Amino acid sequence: MPRISHQIELNSYPIGAIKTSDFVIRDVTLPEIGPNEVLVRNTFGSVDPALCLRFRETAPKGYFQALALHTPLDGVATVGEVVQSRAEGFGEGDVVSHAMGFREYSVVDANAEWMGGIGTLRRLDVDVAPARYYLGALGGSGITAYAGLFHAAQLRDQDVVWVSSAAGSVGSLAAQIAKRRGNVVIGSAGSAAKVTHLLDELGLDAAFNYHDGPVEEMLAAVAPEGIDVYFDNVGGDHLEAAVGALRKWGRAALCGAVSEYQSEDDACGPRNLFLVTSNELSLRGFRGSNHVDLREQVIGELAPLLASGQLKYPESIFEGLEHAPDAIVHMLAGDTVGKTLVRIGSGPDDNHTVAQ
Amino acid sequence: MPRISHQIELNSYPIGAIKTSDFVIRDVTLPEIGPNEVLVRNTFGSVDPALCLRFRETAPKGYFQALALHTPLDGVATVGEVVQSRAEGFGEGDVVSHAMGFREYSVVDANAEWMGGIGTLRRLDVDVAPARYYLGALGGSGITAYAGLFHAAQLRDQDVVWVSSAAGSVGSLAAQIAKRRGNVVIGSAGSAAKVTHLLDELGLDAAFNYHDGPVEEMLAAVAPEGIDVYFDNVGGDHLEAAVGALRKWGRAALCGAVSEYQSEDDACGPRNLFLVTSNELSLRGFRGSNHVDLREQVIGELAPLLASGQLKYPESIFEGLEHAPDAIVHMLAGDTVGKTLVRIGSGPDDNHTVAQ
Repeated sequence: MPRISHQIELNSYPIGAIKTSDFVIRDVTLPEIGPNEVLVRNTFGSVDPALCLRFRETAPKGYFQALALHTPLDGVATVGEVVQSRAEGFGEGDVVSHAMGFREYSVVDANAEWMGGIGTLRRLDVDVAPARYYLGALGGSGITAYAGLFHAAQLRDQDVVWVSSAAGSVGSLAAQIAKRRGNVVIGSAGSAAKVTHLLDELGLDAAFNYHDGPVEEMLAAVAPEGIDVYFDNVGGDHLEAAVGALRKWGRAALCGAVSEYQSEDDACGPRNLFLVTSNELSLRGFRGSNHVDLREQVIGELAPLLASGQLKYPESIFEGLEHAPDAIVHMLAGDTVGKTLVRIGSGPDDNHTVAQ
Repeated sequence: MPRISHQIELNSYPIGAIKTSDFVIRDVTLPEIGPNEVLVRNTFGSVDPALCLRFRETAPKGYFQALALHTPLDGVATVGEVVQSRAEGFGEGDVVSHAMGFREYSVVDANAEWMGGIGTLRRLDVDVAPARYYLGALGGSGITAYAGLFHAAQLRDQDVVWVSSAAGSVGSLAAQIAKRRGNVVIGSAGSAAKVTHLLDELGLDAAFNYHDGPVEEMLAAVAPEGIDVYFDNVGGDHLEAAVGALRKWGRAALCGAVSEYQSEDDACGPRNLFLVTSNELSLRGFRGSNHVDLREQVIGELAPLLASGQLKYPESIFEGLEHAPDAIVHMLAGDTVGKTLVRIGSGPDDNHTVAQ
């Protein structure tokens, strides 16, 4: 019996900000799986800011490839349960992560590498954490936070750290990890509620709402002596403010520039680059997908902290595959907190959460 | 008998490009030297691009302090001969370097630190090289070239290296040092004659005149596969072209941005910073004055190469202190090749040169 699956497709390339009407949901008949393939019934899909870079006719040079219209959204991290397998090492009932996202059922090639390995088919240990955590803290977000702090920024003991988008999936992890190791951590976000969250829930030393004034001034108010590390999730005026505030030998870890993702224009880089020379600063870009080697360390260190509630991990979950476009639009508009997910189907670990 | 000395002073803060009329030469009566001071009869003064950052009412944040009008130009590297000493370790006839520049005689405090130590009073070994070389290859320029290649850019064996201002004092050293260790080296400069010099004299693998077209296109023509290291002496369109051409894990060493030194506006930073993230690039600023610890290595390694002529070291020497303003103006206009110097007085090693 052929099996029907629903899937989200891009219906048109967004003009300006991404809208829900740029997507369509469609029924498809699944093919029989071939050798080295598994059929997965998906439970959760990951909504990541950088995804919108692929919703374009041409993705930026050096990035994952652009998505064609009216094709399934390959390259979106997803978890689910194997219902049929022709791949060695995978069997019915296995809980897995893969990259054939935003659809009810996925046919997954066990040999295909996605996102430097982060999205490659992989069996998950759900005794350690619920499956969906492997889409965030124990997956791309956690790896990205570690790569930024320890690889790109070379975090040191006395560093004063500023994390932008600190209420987001990567930012909230980076901020808390730095805080736990004893650094002074400043967070910024786009609403008063998020600022309260950063201070009261995540326990950061200071926080500000970047809508309350020029970023440079907001930052100076909470860090009058300057900063040593900037974890950049925003770019633009945030990066320029950081370059102005970084002390000698300071380091900025450039994770992505969500402020520019939806812009067609090439934004002006920091106008104060001279300070990079005079203060011997480093601006270092990085992507989680280049650091999948950190995965076991991330899982080993963060899973116990998530289980005990020492690490806060808020989630914004949109219910139902048909709401994936809403999830994307709201996440990019800054309406969500923590990890943004789409619940595609029910799973055995739906009720597992960490202590909050 | 009071001794009269001539000295260059800033007469007005330049508006737009620096002009010779912004300077004045004045006679002053020298004070008697005090304890820990020496009196030096100067022979050569160094003309450095970044000097113009101090010819302003306010120097850029993080840089050496601005120069007041109608005061001697402290902080300009100079060599000369001690004629009187009240400082332990220095005696009459010693050849020294110091930072009390652009004047006939200098009273130098032996304890005062200048430019992170590069400009602090120091006795020179003129058996190793002529004194004036300690103002360039064996001083600030050499230290800066080393710091850029090995510290900021972390030069590796197979790296393809682009050096801008490659006919300048720092650039020509950086380019040749990289070339000698086996790297493929591309140089850029601002005239056809300089390009010929880069290819025929310095032996670089490729070179272009940035006036011949958009830098991005000129670079792509000589490095179609991209580059791994960019030694930036220019900033602006050069840095943006480099960010576009740097391959994954590429590194840019930001030494200064002469294209912006004489501009009042804050120039737009690279508009393609997204590539820093996607290709995991590093942009790292540095200043020679933070790396004076490299001095002995630089002297030890470069002096024999200079003596044997294996390292080319062209000099543009302006004769007479009264021509220091010309030297500054011409150096900034790109009219000079190699190290730009002002001959202030005769010295015992005037005729020492390296094989060319």
